[in-house]
Amino acid sequence: MQFKEWGEDCFVQHLAKHFKVKKPLIGIGDDCAVIPGQKGKSWVVTTDALVEGVHFLKEEIPPEDLGYKTVAVNVSDIAAMGGEPKYAFFAAAFPKDLEDSWVKKFMHGLREACQKWRVLLLGGDTVGSKRDVFLNLALMGEANSTHIKYRHQAKHGDIICTTGFLGDSGGGLKVLLEKRSKGRDSLLKAHFRPEPCPATGIWLASQEGVHAMMDVSDGLDCDLRRILASSKKGAEIETSKLPISPSLWAASSRYHWDPLELALTGGEDYCLLLTVDSNAFQKIQRGFKKKFGTPLFEIGSITGSRLEYLNEGQRISLHYKNFDHFK
Amino acid sequence: MQFKEWGEDCFVQHLAKHFKVKKPLIGIGDDCAVIPGQKGKSWVVTTDALVEGVHFLKEEIPPEDLGYKTVAVNVSDIAAMGGEPKYAFFAAAFPKDLEDSWVKKFMHGLREACQKWRVLLLGGDTVGSKRDVFLNLALMGEANSTHIKYRHQAKHGDIICTTGFLGDSGGGLKVLLEKRSKGRDSLLKAHFRPEPCPATGIWLASQEGVHAMMDVSDGLDCDLRRILASSKKGAEIETSKLPISPSLWAASSRYHWDPLELALTGGEDYCLLLTVDSNAFQKIQRGFKKKFGTPLFEIGSITGSRLEYLNEGQRISLHYKNFDHFK
Repeated sequence: MQFKEWGEDCFVQHLAKHFKVKKPLIGIGDDCAVIPGQKGKSWVVTTDALVEGVHFLKEEIPPEDLGYKTVAVNVSDIAAMGGEPKYAFFAAAFPKDLEDSWVKKFMHGLREACQKWRVLLLGGDTVGSKRDVFLNLALMGEANSTHIKYRHQAKHGDIICTTGFLGDSGGGLKVLLEKRSKGRDSLLKAHFRPEPCPATGIWLASQEGVHAMMDVSDGLDCDLRRILASSKKGAEIETSKLPISPSLWAASSRYHWDPLELALTGGEDYCLLLTVDSNAFQKIQRGFKKKFGTPLFEIGSITGSRLEYLNEGQRISLHYKNFDHFK
Repeated sequence: MQFKEWGEDCFVQHLAKHFKVKKPLIGIGDDCAVIPGQKGKSWVVTTDALVEGVHFLKEEIPPEDLGYKTVAVNVSDIAAMGGEPKYAFFAAAFPKDLEDSWVKKFMHGLREACQKWRVLLLGGDTVGSKRDVFLNLALMGEANSTHIKYRHQAKHGDIICTTGFLGDSGGGLKVLLEKRSKGRDSLLKAHFRPEPCPATGIWLASQEGVHAMMDVSDGLDCDLRRILASSKKGAEIETSKLPISPSLWAASSRYHWDPLELALTGGEDYCLLLTVDSNAFQKIQRGFKKKFGTPLFEIGSITGSRLEYLNEGQRISLHYKNFDHFK
């Protein structure tokens, strides 16, 4: 059997089984690990790798954006736990014949992202590689221990919502792969420069009515299934309510893409996916809009068992292939 | 200009310049970063990457040993700061067509090392790669804040010593590259399964007389120069006192290797290199021997400026090429 046949979730389960830890530590299985800190705070820690040819196409992504994205994808995990990003440790392998101007631009983007999210880069290991670029960041954040949200806390009847549009980054990747020239800028920006917002994560985590939370990195369908598996629940998603940006609608119409497929499986959205007590939802939705000026998009609700997709209330069956970095 | 022309130290200096941090935080430039913790403790954090074809030959190293080594090289950094290893975050990219039996054996070695050093693996990111294996571990340790030792603390007149033999791992690599069959086992073991000892680091760090400390990962010559550059000092090393194992002597004699070159530039020794107040040295040396049953090997002393090599007290000039993972 080959490694790729495992799939990412299967490998994570293998790790979680072999590396069990006891409370108050939280190990493998959420967006971050949790380590008790001082004064009611905990460390939330994540690590995310980006590999050339798998997560990015080196000839397509500007090196500054790749540096920025290396930080952003980790900030998104910290945000998903309700944490504030703090300290980063960077490891990279660069091909020995890579132009140093490329590395300098990459580091410039990395620094820009660190400054934006007030992350201090405290350490690193940078080595040569034979051929490909490998990037890894480990990021420590700090969270109020009693506020941290996990994937297993979804409850029957919860409203499911996201903090941002879905599918734009997937659309950006399609623009690249299909070499499209029109209406590409905002989709490419979503793909190259994700903008997670820890402030929204911290605020949402502080609301008692928010139950489960994670970031959308592998596509709504894949990530929602993770919440459902952890919480042992099902869900109904109303596809007509999925937040799809005007740019993605326009590009989908022009290039005959299926916007629903991109919204559900495109991946790399780096917004938050959460489930909220239905009695608290309206208040939290209003408070969120008032505080951040952007909506919480209601897309469905938690049910007893299976994940079902609806269109205007009618069940539909979808046959999309999920994105898996293993395959 | 190509990336490889920078060299590792130059790149680290570039990072340190652009990512400065303020006390009590300690950032780039030592074996670990330091983050203040609670009750007089600090977090010491390191990250080390291993890349196929650069740090290891996948067809040569047994996967169990590679998993073990991935943990060991990071434990060595924690030991060098006087810390106890605690929490690990593992990131890896495996080629998609890699046999899963290889991955299982690798994870077995990783788990064995975690158990040995009581490290809890709390998180990870495992992805596919196009071709090569890329491994990274970020490791958090805990140290007594007032005991932590740095590279910049060497003082004029200090005795320089190591906690272990030098060159065995470099000899192991030579055994592989030259396809040698005799007298290879202990050298290969040193190369495949480094055995850093955090207990020695913690004890040495608790001694006031110990000034500068780091681990020997890139070869004594290279790493000593780092202490000297940080401390703005020089050193005299008596080459006849360098601790060279009987196995390395025997293999060098059999295969016409230069044991001095291997001891100085072989790299991956993963023992500790430290400088000790000359007035305190004898007591510390006796205490060390009593506690751990192994010697502290005295190899020279800190002087005013340049690094000089002696043989039986006479200056000699050496022209070895240092090992650099960049090149």
